[in-house]
Amino acid sequence: MSYRKIGKILGKIMILEALLMLAPLAVSFFYRESLIYKLAFVIPSAVLAIAGLLLQLLKPRRNTLYQKEGFALTALVWVVMALFGAVPFVINGDIPNYVDACFEIMSGFTTTGASIVTDITAMSHSTLFWRSFSHWIGGMGILVFVLIFIPESNDGSSMHLLRAESPGPQVGKIVSKMKVTTRILYLIYLGMTVLEIIILMLDKPIAGYESEQFFFSLLATFGCAGTGGFGFIPGSMEMFNPFSQYVMATFLIMFGVNFSLYYLILVGKIRDVLRSEEFRSYFLMVVCAIGFVFLSLMARFESYPQVYTTEEAFRHSYFQVASLMTTTGFTTQDYDVWPMLAKTVLVLLMFTGAMAGSTAGGIKVSRIVIAMKGAFINIRKLINPRYVPKANFEGKTLEQKTINDVFGFITLYLFLLLAAVFILSFDPANGQVVSIASDAGVNTVTHGFFSNFSAVLACISNIGPAFEAIGPYASYADYSVVSKIALALMMLIGRLEIFPVLILFSRRTWKRI
Amino acid sequence: MSYRKIGKILGKIMILEALLMLAPLAVSFFYRESLIYKLAFVIPSAVLAIAGLLLQLLKPRRNTLYQKEGFALTALVWVVMALFGAVPFVINGDIPNYVDACFEIMSGFTTTGASIVTDITAMSHSTLFWRSFSHWIGGMGILVFVLIFIPESNDGSSMHLLRAESPGPQVGKIVSKMKVTTRILYLIYLGMTVLEIIILMLDKPIAGYESEQFFFSLLATFGCAGTGGFGFIPGSMEMFNPFSQYVMATFLIMFGVNFSLYYLILVGKIRDVLRSEEFRSYFLMVVCAIGFVFLSLMARFESYPQVYTTEEAFRHSYFQVASLMTTTGFTTQDYDVWPMLAKTVLVLLMFTGAMAGSTAGGIKVSRIVIAMKGAFINIRKLINPRYVPKANFEGKTLEQKTINDVFGFITLYLFLLLAAVFILSFDPANGQVVSIASDAGVNTVTHGFFSNFSAVLACISNIGPAFEAIGPYASYADYSVVSKIALALMMLIGRLEIFPVLILFSRRTWKRI
Repeated sequence: MSYRKIGKILGKIMILEALLMLAPLAVSFFYRESLIYKLAFVIPSAVLAIAGLLLQLLKPRRNTLYQKEGFALTALVWVVMALFGAVPFVINGDIPNYVDACFEIMSGFTTTGASIVTDITAMSHSTLFWRSFSHWIGGMGILVFVLIFIPESNDGSSMHLLRAESPGPQVGKIVSKMKVTTRILYLIYLGMTVLEIIILMLDKPIAGYESEQFFFSLLATFGCAGTGGFGFIPGSMEMFNPFSQYVMATFLIMFGVNFSLYYLILVGKIRDVLRSEEFRSYFLMVVCAIGFVFLSLMARFESYPQVYTTEEAFRHSYFQVASLMTTTGFTTQDYDVWPMLAKTVLVLLMFTGAMAGSTAGGIKVSRIVIAMKGAFINIRKLINPRYVPKANFEGKTLEQKTINDVFGFITLYLFLLLAAVFILSFDPANGQVVSIASDAGVNTVTHGFFSNFSAVLACISNIGPAFEAIGPYASYADYSVVSKIALALMMLIGRLEIFPVLILFSRRTWKRI
Repeated sequence: MSYRKIGKILGKIMILEALLMLAPLAVSFFYRESLIYKLAFVIPSAVLAIAGLLLQLLKPRRNTLYQKEGFALTALVWVVMALFGAVPFVINGDIPNYVDACFEIMSGFTTTGASIVTDITAMSHSTLFWRSFSHWIGGMGILVFVLIFIPESNDGSSMHLLRAESPGPQVGKIVSKMKVTTRILYLIYLGMTVLEIIILMLDKPIAGYESEQFFFSLLATFGCAGTGGFGFIPGSMEMFNPFSQYVMATFLIMFGVNFSLYYLILVGKIRDVLRSEEFRSYFLMVVCAIGFVFLSLMARFESYPQVYTTEEAFRHSYFQVASLMTTTGFTTQDYDVWPMLAKTVLVLLMFTGAMAGSTAGGIKVSRIVIAMKGAFINIRKLINPRYVPKANFEGKTLEQKTINDVFGFITLYLFLLLAAVFILSFDPANGQVVSIASDAGVNTVTHGFFSNFSAVLACISNIGPAFEAIGPYASYADYSVVSKIALALMMLIGRLEIFPVLILFSRRTWKRI
C-alpha cells in the first residue's frame, strides 16, 4: 500500500467534501437558521479543508496505483466521507448520537435512504438538504467526481477506481476514453436532474407546504437521481400530488437505466439501445412487476386495509415498483400491509435492482440475466457433455469467466445477507411489538425474522425501507449500535459491490510496498 | 432418449415398490386393520408388479445409458414412485385427496417430512408405517437400491445414476468399485438403523402408549436414518422421554455424516476421518449452533413463552440443531416462538444442511466450505491479479471448476427458492390468521412472507416444518393444489440436487435417439 499516494487522493476528496458542505451552509443562510446550524457545516468543512490541504504536501514515491490500492482507496474514501459527513447532524443536534448520524449519512451517500429519524418534521432545512444532497453526490460515485482532479496517467489508476465504484459486472467499452466520457455522463446526470426539478415545479404545490415547493422539488429530485429514498415530510411521497408521483416514478425508471445508453442516444445510436439485452430485460421486468402488483391490489385475493380506485392502484403499483426496483425507497403507500403477491414481487425487486451502470443498487439486471444464461448452459452441458456453450450477451460472446464471476457474486451476496441477519438476531429490538401509523391506519407488528431479513436486504441493495417493523412508515431507530454499524457496512458493501469493502479487511492490503 | 431402456429400468423400480408395499401390508395384518386398509396396499402393489413385469418384455436396442438419460431417469423414477406410493392413502381414506397424498408421499420419499395431516391420531398403523418407511427407503436413494439389479457394465451407466442421486458436489473415489461399496454403505445404514431401534427400546415407554413402544421406536428410527421428519403422535417427538430425545439427536448427527467416513472407520482409517475438512466443519457448525441456540434460550434476551431448566434448554437446543441441520424436521418444542437468535440459527442451518454423501438435504457443508474458499480466492485475486490460487479441499487441490459449479449451484438454489416463493404468493392461505396449539400454549400467527419463505426453504432443503403458519405444530394442509405441487417439486429438486429434475423439463431430453 502506498500510503502517501492514498493519503494525497484522500486529501483531495476531503477538500471536495469541504466544498460540498458549502451547499447546505447556503441553505442554512437562506432559511435564516440560528448560528449553531451554520457552525454545524462551517466547522467540519474547515477541518476537512485544512486536513485535505495538508495531505497535499505528501510526496508519493510513485504515482501509480495498483488494483488493490484502487479498491481499498475507494472503500476508504466512502468511510471517511461518512465519518465527516455525520458531524453536522451532531453539532446542530438534529441527530445527537454520532453512530446514528454516521448511519444516516452513510445511508445518504450509498443512496440507501434507510433512516433513523423518527420525527422528520423536527429536522432543519439544512439537515434535510444535506441528507438528500448526499444521495445526489453518492449516486454517480464520489470518486468519479474526483477523477477530474487526478493528473492524467496511462497506467490505469483511474480505471481501477472507476471499476471499483461503477455498479455492474463489467465496465463497458465506453470507459476507455474515460475522462471525456465521465464528463458526458455527469452532464447527462445534471441535465436529467434539472429537467425533473422543472417538471416537478409545474405541479401545484402540496397543500399546506406552498412556500416549500422549490425546496421539495429539489430534494425529491436529489432522491430520484441518486435513487436514494430519504423522505423530508411525513409519509415519504404520500402527500405529493398524483402528477408529481407519476413524474417521479418515470424519472426513477429513467435513472435506473445504464447511463451509457443515454450516451448512445446522444450520439444517435438509438438502435443499439433498443437492442441492448439488459435494457429489454429491465423494461420487461418493470412491466411485469407493475402488472403483478396492480393485479394483486385490484383482485383483492386477500383483504388489506386500503381501498383504491383503478387509477390509484395503478399509480401506487407504478410508483412502488419504480421505487423499489431502482432501489430508491420512496413510498406513496404503506406497502407492508399490501397482499402477499404485491409484497413478494417487491421483495424480488429488492434482490434484482435496476441496470448496471445506473445509480441503482442490488444485484443488477445484467447479473440476473447472465446467471440465468449460465444456469441454462450448465443444464445443457449435463444433457450433452460435449456441448460447447455459445451464449451471447449484449451481442458479444458470454465468456465462462463472466458467468463464474456472476455466480460468485450472487453466492457472496447471499452469504453476506445471511451473516448480517445473524448479527441482527442478537438485537434487543427483536420480538418487540411496534405500532406503525400510516395511510392504512395504525398497524401493530412484531419485530420478527422478516423484519431483520428485509432490513438487511434493504441495506445491502441500497433501498432503505423494508417490511414489518422496518416498513416504509417505520425507521431503523430501534436497532442497537452494533446492528446499525453492521447495516451501514452492508450499505457500503452493496454500493461498492462487495469486493472493495472486503479488501479493506485483508491484512495483505495494508502491507507497505 | 432410449425409451425402451428407460422403461425397463423403470419397470424394475416398480417391482421393487410393489415388494416394499408388502411391509405396510404386513403391519396392517399385524394390527388387524379392516379389509380396506389391506386392499389399500394390495391393489397398487399388484398393479405395480404387473406393469413392472410387462415392462421387462421390452428389448432395448442398446444397453448403455447416456448421462442425460441417467439424470432424467432418476427424476422420473422418483415421480413414478410418488404417484403410485400415494394410492394407498387414497384407498384407505386416511388422505382422501390424491394431490395431498402425492404431496405426503413425495415428502416421505424425499425425506422431507412436510405433512398435510392435521390430525395424526386419526391415521392407521399401516399409513403411519408407510409414511415413515418411505423416509427410510428414500434416505439412501431409490436407485442405489436398484443398482444391484442392473447387469454389470463398464459403460458408466450406473455411475450416472448414482451421481444423480448422491448428495454433494462430487462423487468420491469410494464409488469406483461401486457395487461392492454400495452394498457396504447399505449394510452400515442397516446396522445403524438396528442399533438405534435397540437403544430406543431400552428407554421406558411413553406414558399412555406402552403397547406401541416397538412400533414407535421403528418409526422414529426410520425418520432419523432417512433424516425425514414425519411425526406419528401429536407434537412430533415432544412426548418422548429425555433419554430417547438424546439418543435420537445423537443418531441424527451420525446420520448427517458422509457414509464413506464410516466405511473408512471400518477399514481402520480413523485418521483420515478426523482429517476430513467437511467432517471438521460439520462438527464445528453443530457445536457452534447448539451453543448459540442454548445461549439464546438461557439468556432470555427476549421473552418467550417456555420456561426451561438448564438441562431442558440444552436438550432442546441439541435436538433442534441436530434435527434441522440434518434436515430431518423432528421437533421437541415449538421453536417458532423461541427468541430471534435461536430462530435465525435454525434458519441458517436450514440452508446449510449436513454433510454430502449423508441422507440429509440442503446445500451441504462441503459446498458451503468450497464456496467460502472460492470467495477468498476471488478476493485474493483482486488484491493481487497475478495470484495463482492453490486452495485445497480434503487434501486435494480445489479446482476452479469445482468452485464454479458450487457457485452455480448456490445461485440456482436461491433462484428456485425465490421462484417458488413467488408461486406461493398467489395462495389464498396468505394473510390468514392461524391459531397453533403447542407446548407453548395457543399461538396466533398470520400466514405472512416468512411462512412462505421458510416453507419453500423447508421443502427444497428436505426439512419439513418451517416457521409461522407452517411452524412445527402447524401443517401444509392450508396450501392450495398449485402450491402443494410447487412445493412437492421443490422437495424433489432438493433431494436430487436440482439438475436431474430440471433436465426433465428440457425438450432435448425427450428426443428419441
